[in-house]
Amino acid sequence: MLTRAGCDQRVGELLDRLSADCQAIVLTHPCHVNYLSGFLPSLAVLNEQKLSFLVVAADGQTTLIADNWQAGAARACQAHQTLIYEWYDETRPAKSCRQLAVRTLLEHLRSVHPRLRGVGVETSALPFEAAENIRQLFRNVTLNDISEPLTEMRKCKHEDEIESIREAVRACEAGFSAVQQELGPGMTELEACASANAAALNSAGLPIVAGGDFISGLERCAAGSGLPTSRVMQAGELLIMDFFLSLRGYHADLCRTLSVSGRLVQEQSRRLAILDKAKAAAEEQLRPGAKAAQIYKALPDVVAGEGLAGQFWGHAGHGIGLDHPESPFIVAESEEELEYGNVVTLEPGLYLEGWGGMRIEDDYLITTTGYERLSSLDSKG
Amino acid sequence: MLTRAGCDQRVGELLDRLSADCQAIVLTHPCHVNYLSGFLPSLAVLNEQKLSFLVVAADGQTTLIADNWQAGAARACQAHQTLIYEWYDETRPAKSCRQLAVRTLLEHLRSVHPRLRGVGVETSALPFEAAENIRQLFRNVTLNDISEPLTEMRKCKHEDEIESIREAVRACEAGFSAVQQELGPGMTELEACASANAAALNSAGLPIVAGGDFISGLERCAAGSGLPTSRVMQAGELLIMDFFLSLRGYHADLCRTLSVSGRLVQEQSRRLAILDKAKAAAEEQLRPGAKAAQIYKALPDVVAGEGLAGQFWGHAGHGIGLDHPESPFIVAESEEELEYGNVVTLEPGLYLEGWGGMRIEDDYLITTTGYERLSSLDSKG
Repeated sequence: MLTRAGCDQRVGELLDRLSADCQAIVLTHPCHVNYLSGFLPSLAVLNEQKLSFLVVAADGQTTLIADNWQAGAARACQAHQTLIYEWYDETRPAKSCRQLAVRTLLEHLRSVHPRLRGVGVETSALPFEAAENIRQLFRNVTLNDISEPLTEMRKCKHEDEIESIREAVRACEAGFSAVQQELGPGMTELEACASANAAALNSAGLPIVAGGDFISGLERCAAGSGLPTSRVMQAGELLIMDFFLSLRGYHADLCRTLSVSGRLVQEQSRRLAILDKAKAAAEEQLRPGAKAAQIYKALPDVVAGEGLAGQFWGHAGHGIGLDHPESPFIVAESEEELEYGNVVTLEPGLYLEGWGGMRIEDDYLITTTGYERLSSLDSKG
Repeated sequence: MLTRAGCDQRVGELLDRLSADCQAIVLTHPCHVNYLSGFLPSLAVLNEQKLSFLVVAADGQTTLIADNWQAGAARACQAHQTLIYEWYDETRPAKSCRQLAVRTLLEHLRSVHPRLRGVGVETSALPFEAAENIRQLFRNVTLNDISEPLTEMRKCKHEDEIESIREAVRACEAGFSAVQQELGPGMTELEACASANAAALNSAGLPIVAGGDFISGLERCAAGSGLPTSRVMQAGELLIMDFFLSLRGYHADLCRTLSVSGRLVQEQSRRLAILDKAKAAAEEQLRPGAKAAQIYKALPDVVAGEGLAGQFWGHAGHGIGLDHPESPFIVAESEEELEYGNVVTLEPGLYLEGWGGMRIEDDYLITTTGYERLSSLDSKG
C-alpha cells in the first residue's frame, strides 16, 4: 500500500520538477491520482462515470475530490484533505458525477487559490469542461502540461511502490500455483483463467483487476497471445499462461508455459531450456546504466546460437508499475538505459509455425548494483 | 453483442436529437464509443493509457480510432471505418497513447471534415488537448455538449442492448449457482467472491469485469454493503451476495441473501418473505408511465405493514445498462416515469442493528404492457 511518506516524497519531487509559475497541480488520470495519494476508486462500485481529481498546492498539501460513493476509500487514502461531493444519495436521482466533480474542483480552486496564474495539468486527461471553466474563472491563467515530468518520475519506483508491486507479484504467483495444481487434460482455457483469478483474489485479500493470455495447442500457442476460450486442453499440449493483474493500481506480469499433462516431452524441454538460457543472459545485464537495446539483444543472440536464428520476435521485456507496459522498454531500437528503481519484465518467447509456442516471463527490480528477481516461480512447465 | 443495425439506429437517433450545426460528433467516453460502435478495449490488455475516439459524420458514417494493440477488437466492431494508430510495435519504446490518439483524431477531422463549424462532444470526457487542437484547427468552431441527449437516449434500450444485458444476467446467475452449491461453514467471503467470479467467467466465455458486496455475519450484514474479506463464515449466519458485472460493457446486478448452512431459521425466513412481498408489490407497478417515486413507496409501505416502519432505507432500485446505477432511479424523490425499454433493478433490503441484514435484487425489462423479469434465480436463501 502506498504510504503517506511515499506520497509526500513524490509530491515534493514533482513540484521540484515544475517551473515556478505553477501555483497548483490538478491531476485527473486515476493512475496519477493514485501515485500521489494512494486513492483508487473502490472496485465495489462499477459506476463508469466516476471522476476524481487530486489538487496539489505549491506547499505540497494535497486535496482529493471524490464522489460520496467513494467516501470510504477517499478518507482512507494518503491525501491531506478530502472533498466529497454528493453524487447519489439514494433519495434523489443521481446527478452527473463528472459535472459535479468539475464544479467541486472549481470551488476548491477559487477558495484556496484565488489568484491562480499557472496550473499543472495532464492535458490529455483533464476534461475540456474543467479546463474551460478554470480559464473562465482565472483570467490569463496558463494550463501547463505536466505529463512528461510525471512519466519521467514514474520510471524509478519508491519503496512503497516496490512493496505494492511485490504484493501484486505474490497474488499473481498464487494464480500460477493454482493452475499448476489443477491443470490437466479436459480443462478449458477459461477454467484455467478462472482458477488463476480466484487464487489471485484469495491471495490478495481484496478485489483485483486481472487479464492475460491463456492459449493452448499448437496453433494458438504459435500466435503468442489471445484471450482464454472454451477450448478443451489435451494431454501433450502446452498452455502459455501470461497472467497479469493490478492490485491497488500496481501491476505484476508473469508468464510460464505449462504442460497440460504435467510432463514436457524432450523437444519441449529443450526449447524451454533455450528460453531459460536467453532469460539468464538478459538477467546478467540488468543493472543501472545498462542499455535496454543491449539487454534486448541477448535474447535473439541466444536463440540464434541454438540454431533458431530469426525466430525470436517481439520485445524482450518492459517496465511495469502503475501501468503495463511502461518505460523502460527493452526493445531493439531503444535509447533508454536502466536506472536504480526501475521494475522491468523479461519475457523471451519462441513461436514456430507448425510447432507451437512457448514464453516465460519474470519481474525484476533494478538495484544499485544489479537486480532482484521479484517473482519466485520455478522455471518448470 | 451489439449489432450493426442497432449501432446504426442509435447513431441516427442521436443525430436526430442534435441541432443542425453539428457536422460531426466526437465521442470519448468508452461507454459511448461502445454504445454506437460495439467497441470495447480488450481486457487482454491492462494498459491504463488507452484512449479511443468514435467520430460520427453527419451522414451517420462512424470511424473508430484505436491503438494498434486494440486493432483486433477494433476491426471486429460495428464501426464503418477503423483508424489504427501505431502506439507500440515492440521494436521502439511506446509513445504516449493519448497524444497519438488525439493526433489521429485531428488528422481524420481535417481530411474528412475540412470545414467544421460545429462538433458534438462530451465536454466532461473529451480531453482538453483534443478540444484545444480542434479549436486551433477550425477557426470559430463550436464544441457543443451532447451528454444530455446521450443520457436521455440511453434510458430506453434497443433490442441488441437488451440481448447484451440478458447475457450479462446469465453470467451473473452462474455466479449465484456456484456459490449456492459451494457455500458452507468455513468458507471465507473472498472464496465466495472468487467462486462467483470464476463461474461467471466460465459462463460468459470471455473476460468480464465483476464487483459486489459479499458480507456475512450480523454486523457486516447490518451495514448493507462491503467488499469481500477473509472473514470465515459460520453456520447460522447469512451472506448478502450482491453480485454485479459487466459483459461487453453491459451490466447485470443481482442480490440474494444466502444461509451459510443452507437452511434459514424461522425469523430469517419471515424477514426474507417480507422482502419477497415488498419486491412483488413493486413489480406489480412496473409498466410504462409508472412513477418511480410510487414504485419506490411500495417497499417502505410493505415493510411498515409488517411492523417494521422506518426500517427500510436506501433506494428501491435503479436503471442498468452501460452503467450501474443509471437512470431511471427508483427513489423517494424522483420525478421520473418508467418507459418502454427501461431496464431496472428492484432491491428491497432490511438492515437492523443487532440483528443483521438481508437484501434481494432482480433485473427487469419494462415492456409495452408491464415487465419481464430478466433474472430467474429463485427467492430462497
